[in-house]
Amino acid sequence: MAKKQMTYAGAGVDIDAGDQMVTMIQRHMARTYGSRVLGRHGAFAGCFRLDYNEKLFKRNYRDPVLVACTDGVGSKVQLAVEMGLYDTVGIDLVAMSVNDLIVQGAEPLFFLDYIGTHKLEPQRMTEIVKGVADGCVQSDCALLGGETAELPDLYAEGEFDLAGFAVGVCELKKIIDGSRVERGDVVLGLESDGIHSNGYSLVRAVVREATLDLNQVYVELDERKTLGQVLLTPTRIYARPIVDVLHYYRVKRVVSGMAHITGGGLGGNLNRALPSHCNAKIDRSVWRPSPVFGFLQKHGNIDEEEMFRVFNMGIGYCLIVRPDFANSIAHQLERAGERVHFLGRIVKGDGKVCWQ
Amino acid sequence: MAKKQMTYAGAGVDIDAGDQMVTMIQRHMARTYGSRVLGRHGAFAGCFRLDYNEKLFKRNYRDPVLVACTDGVGSKVQLAVEMGLYDTVGIDLVAMSVNDLIVQGAEPLFFLDYIGTHKLEPQRMTEIVKGVADGCVQSDCALLGGETAELPDLYAEGEFDLAGFAVGVCELKKIIDGSRVERGDVVLGLESDGIHSNGYSLVRAVVREATLDLNQVYVELDERKTLGQVLLTPTRIYARPIVDVLHYYRVKRVVSGMAHITGGGLGGNLNRALPSHCNAKIDRSVWRPSPVFGFLQKHGNIDEEEMFRVFNMGIGYCLIVRPDFANSIAHQLERAGERVHFLGRIVKGDGKVCWQ
Repeated sequence: MAKKQMTYAGAGVDIDAGDQMVTMIQRHMARTYGSRVLGRHGAFAGCFRLDYNEKLFKRNYRDPVLVACTDGVGSKVQLAVEMGLYDTVGIDLVAMSVNDLIVQGAEPLFFLDYIGTHKLEPQRMTEIVKGVADGCVQSDCALLGGETAELPDLYAEGEFDLAGFAVGVCELKKIIDGSRVERGDVVLGLESDGIHSNGYSLVRAVVREATLDLNQVYVELDERKTLGQVLLTPTRIYARPIVDVLHYYRVKRVVSGMAHITGGGLGGNLNRALPSHCNAKIDRSVWRPSPVFGFLQKHGNIDEEEMFRVFNMGIGYCLIVRPDFANSIAHQLERAGERVHFLGRIVKGDGKVCWQ
Repeated sequence: MAKKQMTYAGAGVDIDAGDQMVTMIQRHMARTYGSRVLGRHGAFAGCFRLDYNEKLFKRNYRDPVLVACTDGVGSKVQLAVEMGLYDTVGIDLVAMSVNDLIVQGAEPLFFLDYIGTHKLEPQRMTEIVKGVADGCVQSDCALLGGETAELPDLYAEGEFDLAGFAVGVCELKKIIDGSRVERGDVVLGLESDGIHSNGYSLVRAVVREATLDLNQVYVELDERKTLGQVLLTPTRIYARPIVDVLHYYRVKRVVSGMAHITGGGLGGNLNRALPSHCNAKIDRSVWRPSPVFGFLQKHGNIDEEEMFRVFNMGIGYCLIVRPDFANSIAHQLERAGERVHFLGRIVKGDGKVCWQ
């Protein structure tokens, strides 16, 4: 166990500086916007409207909007390097962008990846891209292109970084931006497959400080998998079940908001789906985070609130739905293989997530 | 001057391994393709066809194809770090992707960027994004989103990497893929603004081995700018003049092929625009590469052919055009501010660039 109490900031990540930067760069981004860029209220992905207004797609889009976003996998790539396991971080890469796309109501169309590395080792690069392709298959999108850059002076031997880019399409009138969220709506949470792709700077710091062994099996964590294998479990991709739910309820529009739970945790992501006059009141006792979270908390001596700020704590994706349909949506998602929890309700408030 | 003769491979870049990898990953990419992904003959960018067939856009697209690609800036980012100049590599980033997009006949729609870095320093990140926004403005596209990842264990202090993603649209019937290139067509070359964004591993090796000073003015290079400033000159963006030429000749379709000259040089990029039964016969005496190339060649003791394999050698973009229209296209491009050279002709051959 670490001697001193550990924090995300202590592991090297400065969230405040990131927020400050976002504010600073927005005006540069705004300079490039034409009338085709749609307003982004805490959006998870960028929305770009094409210039037309007629009945179009065979898939029944009248006013299709292209939705695009980009993300990386963070320090999880370094864990992959340490374990010598390269074929799953590509799934994480796709998941990070595609799970953001679907939050806006889009269905994924295509994906591109960027790999920066010390040296182009074909075998290893192929394993990485295999994972990316696996993630694309899971998301029903095409891996349309990619770039691998050999930067021997920038990346240390054996190291690499990954960036991914996804484009999807959404019917203009059906974009989900949280504006239709109402008091009384129900918050459904879909379980994560562990830590997903955020907080790994802290995870790795815990492993280091508590001198844990990535190659050891810790029975309280998993009876067969090593710690490293557990930590490399790929991010769950919610695209197929979510696209299916939205398609099934496309007329009734009973899903009012959604959130992909990434860095910032439930409190720092579900709030992005809320209008300014609503809170989401969440009951943390209704689900039990998988053992990996307790394991890290114990060995890192991490405060409970810090855990909820850094990690998804077992819930990877949220839907805010009309109360009359909560049960049927939950059943549809469960039939698609999701583990669903009724996390709480939308109440009067000021755009925050609060715990009950 | 370096004691031993220097090569790109010697500077750490293994082109063969890259080619090998491309072959290996293609089958993984193919697994994810549906009928909407168009065939890619040496394509510079991926093409994704939307499912429709009706008159659509106000901009007169009947069968719009989304065109997407990704690229980075390579080791030029490290030069930016060494010089402490961060606000132009973003232009390079946009240029690398957007110049690829337009090769297929697309007009750029939007762009997203990924920055991986040791530490989120708002001021520096803002300067980087400013450059990205500048590049987007020059390309008439929207900076639709981005991601900045703080990876303190992966990137050394002060270091960062950049990846960019661009999406454009092209009329299906007007995609330029080299299939219409004919014997007798003329090759026009547009001058580059120096080295652009390829070959910087070699550039930096030359600076190191020949103990050049980035902060010194070398009069044979530039009378006022330092070596570092000359080397950081942003990549020229050809989007606006090329889109205008294509629009002007949209009915006659007199542009049969195009190429963005990046890593691999003229010989390794113009060939991608050629059908298998044609060669491009290029006369190297018709233009004079800017002084920076001779300077690097001299100080690095680099073989002439190696220079042409690694660098653009003064030509950043090529058009293959019908001979009757070569003059008028050249004039239009010159009026738009380009410096144009008649590089040579298309002759019978086997898909290669040859020198006369």
